[in-house]
Amino acid sequence: MNIEETLKKIKFDEKGLVPAIAQDVATKEVLMMAYMNEESIKKTLESGYATYYSRSRQQLWKKGETSGHLQEIKGFYYDCDGDTILIKVKQIGPACHTGEYSCFHNPVVEYAFEEDMLNKLFRIIDNRKEN
Amino acid sequence: MNIEETLKKIKFDEKGLVPAIAQDVATKEVLMMAYMNEESIKKTLESGYATYYSRSRQQLWKKGETSGHLQEIKGFYYDCDGDTILIKVKQIGPACHTGEYSCFHNPVVEYAFEEDMLNKLFRIIDNRKEN
Repeated sequence: MNIEETLKKIKFDEKGLVPAIAQDVATKEVLMMAYMNEESIKKTLESGYATYYSRSRQQLWKKGETSGHLQEIKGFYYDCDGDTILIKVKQIGPACHTGEYSCFHNPVVEYAFEEDMLNKLFRIIDNRKEN
Repeated sequence: MNIEETLKKIKFDEKGLVPAIAQDVATKEVLMMAYMNEESIKKTLESGYATYYSRSRQQLWKKGETSGHLQEIKGFYYDCDGDTILIKVKQIGPACHTGEYSCFHNPVVEYAFEEDMLNKLFRIIDNRKEN
């Protein structure tokens, strides 16, 4: 991994930030979304722990530094147009400051889902292609 | 579900937008992130299909309208501070315009992960509390 090369692939917004989605590597649940700047990406990749940029406090924010609810980096990805980051983390304790496991604990709608055969088949084939 | 009540809970940015993460309800993989405005949230919840706001084209964008790669809404959530949306979708075909299943197909780092017992236990207890 070359951090400088990675930074060149990332499109930062006019404030020098990029949204970063944190996903639990174990459960695959989406935990939270926060922002990173160049420095926080460097810190994240160098230290192996998620470090964001706090827009309210205007400073680097190592997730869990005071609470102990650290996020150990297990994967770091950027999307097709380089303007969003996805990190897969080993989440220590709850991710949300409310004490909830995930920040996305407010459902507006939730429908039952049963995967149909065609979709399942597509997914299996697609997975085989990739792995 | 009351759409007007939902809209009151969402904090739109200075451009009237809010980031929306799309997750595959079947595989739990994160597929993409795009932006929604008030109107696109209404359309999404009313139609049952993900509708974003295209910042480049400056118009509503029903995902898959031309490609057929629709996202059927199976869950709609907002986060603890109301500034990010998570949708769980039944993804028809690939999510990414490149033809890849997910937009996050560029890994920078990927480490092996083996869940330790303590973490697993925490997760089981936390799940039991919620369900």
